[in-house]
Amino acid sequence: MDAAAQAPFIQPIALAKAYRLLNHGPTVLVSAHHDGTDNVMAAAWACPLDFDPPKVTVVLDKATATRALIEGSGAFALQVPTRAQVHLTRGVGGESLADSPDKLVRHGVQLFRMEGQVPPFVAGCAAWLSCRVVPEPHNQQTYDLFIGEVTAAWADTRVFKDGHWTYETADPAWRSLHHVAGGHFYTIGDPVEG
Amino acid sequence: MDAAAQAPFIQPIALAKAYRLLNHGPTVLVSAHHDGTDNVMAAAWACPLDFDPPKVTVVLDKATATRALIEGSGAFALQVPTRAQVHLTRGVGGESLADSPDKLVRHGVQLFRMEGQVPPFVAGCAAWLSCRVVPEPHNQQTYDLFIGEVTAAWADTRVFKDGHWTYETADPAWRSLHHVAGGHFYTIGDPVEG
Repeated sequence: MDAAAQAPFIQPIALAKAYRLLNHGPTVLVSAHHDGTDNVMAAAWACPLDFDPPKVTVVLDKATATRALIEGSGAFALQVPTRAQVHLTRGVGGESLADSPDKLVRHGVQLFRMEGQVPPFVAGCAAWLSCRVVPEPHNQQTYDLFIGEVTAAWADTRVFKDGHWTYETADPAWRSLHHVAGGHFYTIGDPVEG
Repeated sequence: MDAAAQAPFIQPIALAKAYRLLNHGPTVLVSAHHDGTDNVMAAAWACPLDFDPPKVTVVLDKATATRALIEGSGAFALQVPTRAQVHLTRGVGGESLADSPDKLVRHGVQLFRMEGQVPPFVAGCAAWLSCRVVPEPHNQQTYDLFIGEVTAAWADTRVFKDGHWTYETADPAWRSLHHVAGGHFYTIGDPVEG
C-alpha cells in the first residue's frame, strides 16, 4: 500500500486506549532505525503490559538485526499487519537483514516516517505503536524480553474507529494475522459478546 | 462441559510444541490452587516467551485473588477457552473471588485435576498448560509480570491435532476468544498461508 494514499486515514489514538490495538493478540511487525539503517521483523510474541501509560512486551531473539537497532536507538515501533500483508509478514519474519540486505524491498515493505519519531513505520498496516525501551538488562539478556512504553499510537480509520476495531464491517483484507507456526496464520474472526 | 465426558479427548502435547497453543494470541483462563482454595481468572495479557523448554509470560494484577494463590503455590495453569465459554470467560474475568466467593459456581466453571499437577484445570477448554513460576520478584512487583515454565500441556483432539489447531474443520464452538475491551471479543477466524 502506498504511504501517501494511506495518510488521510491515519488517526492518532489516545494513549489510554492504545492497549486495544494489541489486546486481541495479533502477530505484529517490529520496526527500528539506528545509525542510518532501517529494519522490520515479524513477532508473534508481543503483548500489552500496562494500560496508562501503556506498556508492551516483545520477545526479540539475539540473532535478529532489528534487536541490534533497538538496542542502539532505545526505540521501536509495533504495527498490526493485515491479511493483505500476509506474504510481507511471512517474508520479513523469515529472513534476516544480515543475510538478505534487500529483504525489505523484495517483500514490498514501504516505510514512512512520523514527525518526532525515531522508528520507521510500515505502510498498509492497520495500527502503529511507537515505543521507547524501558531498560531491563536482566530480562533482555536472560529471556530476550523487551519492555516498551508506548509514547504515541495511530490506527487506520477504515478498521479502527472510536476506540474499537471494526473488523465486522471493514473489508476482510484488513483483518489481523495470528501466526501459529511455519507460515500458517489465522485471521481474526467474528465478534462475540461475553 | 462435563470433565468426564471430555477426558477421552484430552491428549498430551509435546513440550516443544506447547507454544503453538498460545501463539495465535488467545485470551486465556488462569487457574491456581493454594491452601485449600481454587480460583480461575481471565487474562488477555498472556504470551509465549520461549520454545523449549517452553516459557510463558502473564500479567497478574495485584488485586486478583488468583495471583495470591500463584504466589503461595508457585504454580498456575493457562487454558484456552472457547466460543462456547464466552460468558464463563467474561464472568470469571469480571469478578474477584474476594467479593464473590461463589463466582466459579455461578459462572458454570467445572474444575478437574491432572495427576501430579497442583493447579486445577477448567473443563471445556481447548488446551491447558501447567506452569511453575520462574521467580522474578522485580518483574512481579514492578510490572505485575509473571514468567512460567510450562511443565506439561494438553489439548482436546477435536480442535488441536498432530501439532496443529484445526479451527477450520472443528465445530465453530471451539474457536478461541480474543478480548478487545469491556466484554467485546472476537473469535479466531480463517486460515491463511504466508
